[in-house]
Amino acid sequence: MKESLTYRDAGVDLDAADRAKRSLGPLLDAASDENTLSGLGAFGGLYAVPGGLAQPVLVSSADGVGTKLKVAFLTGRHDTVGRDLVNHCVNDILVQGARPLFFLDYLATGEMDEGVVSEVVGGVAAACRENACALLGGETAQMPDFYAPGEYDLAGFVVGVVERARLVDGSAVRAGDRLVALRSSGLHTNGFTLARTIVFDRMGLGVDEEFPGENASAGEVLLRVHRSYLGALWPLLERGSIRAMAHVTGGGIAGNLPRVLPVGLGARIDCGSWAVPNVFIRLAEGGGVALPEMYRVFNMGVGMILAVSPSREAEVLRVLGDEAWGVGEVVDGEGVELVGGG
Amino acid sequence: MKESLTYRDAGVDLDAADRAKRSLGPLLDAASDENTLSGLGAFGGLYAVPGGLAQPVLVSSADGVGTKLKVAFLTGRHDTVGRDLVNHCVNDILVQGARPLFFLDYLATGEMDEGVVSEVVGGVAAACRENACALLGGETAQMPDFYAPGEYDLAGFVVGVVERARLVDGSAVRAGDRLVALRSSGLHTNGFTLARTIVFDRMGLGVDEEFPGENASAGEVLLRVHRSYLGALWPLLERGSIRAMAHVTGGGIAGNLPRVLPVGLGARIDCGSWAVPNVFIRLAEGGGVALPEMYRVFNMGVGMILAVSPSREAEVLRVLGDEAWGVGEVVDGEGVELVGGG
Repeated sequence: MKESLTYRDAGVDLDAADRAKRSLGPLLDAASDENTLSGLGAFGGLYAVPGGLAQPVLVSSADGVGTKLKVAFLTGRHDTVGRDLVNHCVNDILVQGARPLFFLDYLATGEMDEGVVSEVVGGVAAACRENACALLGGETAQMPDFYAPGEYDLAGFVVGVVERARLVDGSAVRAGDRLVALRSSGLHTNGFTLARTIVFDRMGLGVDEEFPGENASAGEVLLRVHRSYLGALWPLLERGSIRAMAHVTGGGIAGNLPRVLPVGLGARIDCGSWAVPNVFIRLAEGGGVALPEMYRVFNMGVGMILAVSPSREAEVLRVLGDEAWGVGEVVDGEGVELVGGG
Repeated sequence: MKESLTYRDAGVDLDAADRAKRSLGPLLDAASDENTLSGLGAFGGLYAVPGGLAQPVLVSSADGVGTKLKVAFLTGRHDTVGRDLVNHCVNDILVQGARPLFFLDYLATGEMDEGVVSEVVGGVAAACRENACALLGGETAQMPDFYAPGEYDLAGFVVGVVERARLVDGSAVRAGDRLVALRSSGLHTNGFTLARTIVFDRMGLGVDEEFPGENASAGEVLLRVHRSYLGALWPLLERGSIRAMAHVTGGGIAGNLPRVLPVGLGARIDCGSWAVPNVFIRLAEGGGVALPEMYRVFNMGVGMILAVSPSREAEVLRVLGDEAWGVGEVVDGEGVELVGGG
């Protein structure tokens, strides 16, 4: 007679899943708002379309955290990756002029470690609150023999809204417009497969060892949270001061800025206008990575680029303070020319 | 002197990613509708809130395909899992009365195999069209040293809309209401960790071997696509004939039906009212799985359960035809009692 099998024998613990799910209830409640009409346990999350918009347009984006997660696994610190995810998604819809309404996450693990699940989702919920965005729901999947023990993948989806007449689509951009850069907080969530190879293999650092030139460990430097630009840029968006915005993610400045420029326009970026942060310099040195490749993979210190009319540049720089600087201009042609710098 | 590193050396091929992304453009275009305001390459997907609703409520759900993906890897067939994903998500918002507006996917791979990516996303796009839902965007992530060669994870996210006054939230359900079951097409997307253990380890079947009692291979039986109930149920929803709906996913009938019943009400399900499909019987036998465990893990042939007033039962059964049958009733109390059957 064969031994009788249960789901748990096969590696899926429904009771642990129920407990993990229930523990997320308070996180969802704390990250809800007056338009949230559902709680934990609903098949779908309910969110009332905010009133007061003549032609509301929903703006939505999906993203993951990439292999930055591997750094979280190495350090055992799981409360930052959810913030990376939310802030990344919020920036992606902000560039079209949208403010976030709600967020959902997808967390897939090999085994259901309730502590890790609630640390990860706790980070998601905290960032949702910071971005005035409801955490409307999500999926926590147990997939044994799929993810290595202690590992997980994390993806997220944001929905925001913008009045149709206030969509920022770059169509107002003209040659001669000024480009303004906003500082990044570090690697954000791109280039981690290369960065990890350099830091852990080439430089031979452990996650807890001090990163050269930083008063912080390698793990801390790599895990620095992706900035949300919502708070900094919203006042300017409300005034209509911005003609286009590009979030500098995979592909770097040259891979992202053209996505928001009209056909026939390009950009000249003055790479001497800012000091590339230490972390990127050490990565280039440690990996012997050529500069063009560095600018293609990493943000190099620039997390967001705005296009503004010349008459608005001074105002924009004043509002943004020392987070921002003039980084170049829009030119006839196409593509991005990186000039000057090291 | 150290060898110079590139992103590609580290395992990420940006050119292949660009090519894969561009190949998805026609898929997005074909799955767009008159409210889709963005194309490929936008940071966020744009979708106009449909007019004509007094108080539009957005209904949103995130889900994955779970380890059903492992069956796709074994068979090399990648065009069905995207349909599972979309249909699962569509059903999850349908139970609250919503029709889908748009969908975004998250596809994470170890290496960027352009053929597999476009097969997977092609399945997503096809199901979006079938559900009259726009494919608004998504993320395709390259995560080497994260996913085994040839493997990927797939998650998705749907946003639908319902007029607030027509939300189906179960509040109208009364003791004595009739429960109507809709046939599932197979395992749908739940219980695959247990099912794979039984089929491939206990029963010792190869994916291409015939599944006992079916004129189909084990791979074909396991990959049968999760049904969307949108087309079958929408006419009934428009007439207001349904008081509550439960999508039978992880946790089975007893884990899902209580999610839509008011406090103080439970259900009695007559397990003798339908013939449990062959695949579940073979799984129970092959794994020596006890019947209560089977009903907790699998849908057992019931993909959706509706609660309707007794006066509406005949109409509902007539409209649904031989896809549906009376499966029990709402009772005072709580929880789900499964009675009769094998």
